[in-house]
Amino acid sequence: MNRGACVALVLCLAAGPVVGAETAAQQAIRAADEEWARVFAARDLDRSVSVCTSDAAVLAPNAPRASGHQAIRELFQETFALPELKISWTPSEIRVANSADLGYSTGAYKMTFKDPKGATVSDVGKYSTVWQKQHDGKWKVVLDSYSSDLPASSPAP
Amino acid sequence: MNRGACVALVLCLAAGPVVGAETAAQQAIRAADEEWARVFAARDLDRSVSVCTSDAAVLAPNAPRASGHQAIRELFQETFALPELKISWTPSEIRVANSADLGYSTGAYKMTFKDPKGATVSDVGKYSTVWQKQHDGKWKVVLDSYSSDLPASSPAP
Repeated sequence: MNRGACVALVLCLAAGPVVGAETAAQQAIRAADEEWARVFAARDLDRSVSVCTSDAAVLAPNAPRASGHQAIRELFQETFALPELKISWTPSEIRVANSADLGYSTGAYKMTFKDPKGATVSDVGKYSTVWQKQHDGKWKVVLDSYSSDLPASSPAP
Repeated sequence: MNRGACVALVLCLAAGPVVGAETAAQQAIRAADEEWARVFAARDLDRSVSVCTSDAAVLAPNAPRASGHQAIRELFQETFALPELKISWTPSEIRVANSADLGYSTGAYKMTFKDPKGATVSDVGKYSTVWQKQHDGKWKVVLDSYSSDLPASSPAP
């Protein structure tokens, strides 16, 4: 590639969304989402809660809206108490406002845990997470929502 | 109020977020959300689907992700087929990016319908909806997610 083509490519990448490439803001949200999944899988309660803003809300199925750190902490505590919990999620799409201060990630989760009789319960589902850029440049969760893909009659968490 | 104070107030309202007042973008999303609730309650399938972008996704509980108009149409058709369906929702919070091209509404829904035996099933829950401003200035849904507040053991839609 000659130098002119190289400069043109760099300018193109820097200008904004390119099919197959992510903007810096999309990459930052992806990294924040992946880090959240890591600390959540490790059942690190403090770090899992601290990814959320103090006025964030988590919308969990079959539970009232959890608004604010205390309610979110209690919700996560219940989840982390599930015996032998294994949970992971991966974003499949990330979109960001032009001002790069608000965006969302959405994707799929999977989890397993043991029921009171020791049988493995498996769940798969989808989630949507709205991220807001903070004054220090960090992306934090302001609104998170998820639900199972499985029929209501199946064992659910 | 003298004219100077009046001008100052108008400038202040036009400048952006004010406690207790909504920006034009927040008002537009609120109006779009309320209009969506109206056409949905009227079981107007075409208009309910057309509020969503062609690449939107709706995350309904106990169902796979519905991506795109065809899948969303089928999901809404199932909901509209519930006997004597009555549904409403109201946004409690609306936030918008500084660039006013992406925002979200979140709030509570309530619905009732008749089960196969004719008994009334009641559900209450919460939702999060991400809105994206289109080139023509209209706000459309790109991502919607909702779930019941009620325990999984209760009758669910």
